[in-house]
Amino acid sequence: MLDQKLNKFLHENQVSFIRDISLLVAQPSVSARSQGIDECAELVRRMTEEIGADTRIIKIDSSAPIIYGEVSSTLSKKTILFYNHYDVQPEEPLEKWESPPFKPEVRGEKLYGRGTSDDKGELVARLKVVESFIKVHGQPPCNIKFCFEGEEETGSLHLNEYIGQNQDLFRADAVIWEGGGAIDDSGTPIVTLGLKGMLAVEFILKTISTDAHSMYAPVLPSAPWKLVRMLSLITNKKGEIMIPEWNQKIRTLTDEEVNVLNNQPFNAETILRTYGVDDLPPGMSNSDARKALVDGPTANISGIWAGYTGPGIKSVLPAEAHCRMDFRLASDQDPKEQKERLRSYLDNNGFKDIQMSVISSLSPARTNYRDPFVKAAVDAGDEVFQRKTITRLSDPGSGPMFVFRQRYEVPVVSLGISHTGALIHAPNEHIRLDLLENGMLWIARTISNFASM
Amino acid sequence: MLDQKLNKFLHENQVSFIRDISLLVAQPSVSARSQGIDECAELVRRMTEEIGADTRIIKIDSSAPIIYGEVSSTLSKKTILFYNHYDVQPEEPLEKWESPPFKPEVRGEKLYGRGTSDDKGELVARLKVVESFIKVHGQPPCNIKFCFEGEEETGSLHLNEYIGQNQDLFRADAVIWEGGGAIDDSGTPIVTLGLKGMLAVEFILKTISTDAHSMYAPVLPSAPWKLVRMLSLITNKKGEIMIPEWNQKIRTLTDEEVNVLNNQPFNAETILRTYGVDDLPPGMSNSDARKALVDGPTANISGIWAGYTGPGIKSVLPAEAHCRMDFRLASDQDPKEQKERLRSYLDNNGFKDIQMSVISSLSPARTNYRDPFVKAAVDAGDEVFQRKTITRLSDPGSGPMFVFRQRYEVPVVSLGISHTGALIHAPNEHIRLDLLENGMLWIARTISNFASM
Repeated sequence: MLDQKLNKFLHENQVSFIRDISLLVAQPSVSARSQGIDECAELVRRMTEEIGADTRIIKIDSSAPIIYGEVSSTLSKKTILFYNHYDVQPEEPLEKWESPPFKPEVRGEKLYGRGTSDDKGELVARLKVVESFIKVHGQPPCNIKFCFEGEEETGSLHLNEYIGQNQDLFRADAVIWEGGGAIDDSGTPIVTLGLKGMLAVEFILKTISTDAHSMYAPVLPSAPWKLVRMLSLITNKKGEIMIPEWNQKIRTLTDEEVNVLNNQPFNAETILRTYGVDDLPPGMSNSDARKALVDGPTANISGIWAGYTGPGIKSVLPAEAHCRMDFRLASDQDPKEQKERLRSYLDNNGFKDIQMSVISSLSPARTNYRDPFVKAAVDAGDEVFQRKTITRLSDPGSGPMFVFRQRYEVPVVSLGISHTGALIHAPNEHIRLDLLENGMLWIARTISNFASM
Repeated sequence: MLDQKLNKFLHENQVSFIRDISLLVAQPSVSARSQGIDECAELVRRMTEEIGADTRIIKIDSSAPIIYGEVSSTLSKKTILFYNHYDVQPEEPLEKWESPPFKPEVRGEKLYGRGTSDDKGELVARLKVVESFIKVHGQPPCNIKFCFEGEEETGSLHLNEYIGQNQDLFRADAVIWEGGGAIDDSGTPIVTLGLKGMLAVEFILKTISTDAHSMYAPVLPSAPWKLVRMLSLITNKKGEIMIPEWNQKIRTLTDEEVNVLNNQPFNAETILRTYGVDDLPPGMSNSDARKALVDGPTANISGIWAGYTGPGIKSVLPAEAHCRMDFRLASDQDPKEQKERLRSYLDNNGFKDIQMSVISSLSPARTNYRDPFVKAAVDAGDEVFQRKTITRLSDPGSGPMFVFRQRYEVPVVSLGISHTGALIHAPNEHIRLDLLENGMLWIARTISNFASM
């Protein structure tokens, strides 16, 4: 049973919602270069206050502020917390944007701009859903909390500390995650129950005090060669991670989880085509690929550099070699344990002299698909979109979901207003305006469903 | 028997020689960025003409001009050719120079400036020795030819073609090579009989059409991982080159060559200390190191890059990976053959898709230490410096010596005015003015010795 009054209000105020999203998108907030973060935080605080929430800014040292918001309800003792972020990815390459990234523009039923989907559009949609409840009914169906952070795109380095220091403030019975890409391109809603974890490290290897002429190669140790030797031990030819006990804490999926996985429509073809690749890796089927994206640990080289990389030729024996790797973690893999495993493996194989620093450390997180809150979200999706909602055990990406999921032992699910083809992190990021109203209804209905359970 | 008149003339004109070297150093000529090359070529042509030589500028398309010069003699039918280059290495890092690199400055018996040693000081010294013969005796003891190129620092890419097209013009009975570092820091002359060859290649590997989010690591092929796999096949853990038949054409040194090698003073300690390294590679003795520098093939990674290398974190799965390698060649190794061996090895091991382009291709060259011209140079060194001249079978570096050595089958030796600690290719490059007069006498005496043989 849909809430007709709320439905009508959401329908009649679409233009004003788009204006609000545009307002936030127009304030640059690129955490990677600390651009506009404080200004954007203040704008978010004001927008949160304007819907009728009590707000608080929480800031540790020079990190990006967290905006906390709270709207209480007399209708239910339950509390839902919304996690979103107001920082965005850098807009480069600028020349590939058809309109300026920080001047939001509507073209053909789409709103373009950096952060329209990830995650300012989602953030504003949640605020406006709660505001709509207040305007229509005087209050939301249950207590609402907001947690808006400004460092998500740089690895949420302080979030766990923030929440740990304000344990009671952020306590909730369920969490709705940031929600990007929650509607597939055909208009089917997707509820996502988990995120992979991540251990990202930077290696620095110095073998000689200064770059040498490469004629000395017979007698001087080479940093890039040593790095190549080290990397070639981390994975084997098939790409499998060779670090002892690395996969020890990957749980076998239960039969029921396998069932959920098998019901998730997936065509690897779509990804392969996007990147101009003909086939999956040898021996990998489409369903293997689906499982690996949900549950498979990875070892990725995100950057490597040494020596002379400019034009022309310079026969140098490089003094240093650098490499960054990100390891996606699944199930119960713990980034701190994995770091120790990696370090020991390198030490035991003759690479004690390689410096390794952690640049990102996120635990995996996953909500049990049988949790009632999952049903609340799935039922809401079915109802609003009139389609069978897809349930995904996990996104292939990573994020700080564990901060809430593990600390409070509450369900966390991701749903929202934006579609999978929204070009997040890329030029011409956008949201589809034809999905905005249903996306907001979906959020509203999930809140109502949960409150009345 | 030294030539007293010439000796006196060289002694009395030192100030004017230093002025001439300074004049040439003051004209920037950085081939890596095509800066000042034509201006410098014209200045060299004029300076060559001014000593009384016939000159010619030879230029193919947009390459750097070669200056050819010729002075004939009625005293001998023999011809000595001098090979030098007027281009220099880039001057960076500028902040480490104590005086501007292109404003030559005398400080404490040293002349500082980019190219003072490599190779403008050597070039001018040869011109002025020949001019001195003309001024004192009316002509040099034998015919003299000059070949001054402007692309040495970028791999002498056109020299072989130039000489091939002007085969008779450049024909000589003996060649005196560019000569940098021909006097050790204690003042002992060094005659060098060879250079290593070089095959330098650039690898480009593309696995996907555009950088991807690293969450797709389970299903997309990674360019840097593939590069690591490939590189790990090229050498083994000990650094030995694993390409089949790579070392087939390394000749065993004759007993007499071993003898020359063993008489070459060498202390690896000096190199290790310069680069802050404690020990030679495991199992390598000081005399192994000396031999490897003279006769050992190498596989060096001069540059490697892929993915995001800026500050912070960007979890990207790179679409491309790049690598540059230089292989030093010895004995009879042929860069074209070696290139085929490398390509086949990669193809046979699953790396057909790696693009490989040759950026430098130089054959090794070595003059027989029993050649009479070597004796002329060694005797001249003994006589002028009153010390036992050191004979080196080969320099550990590379250059286009083979262009003359192999084509004309004539002896080529390197000797000159500058010392081993001259900081070539580095900030504060200089020559020692206390060695200039003896260096020029050494060149003069070598010419006389050879003419009268």
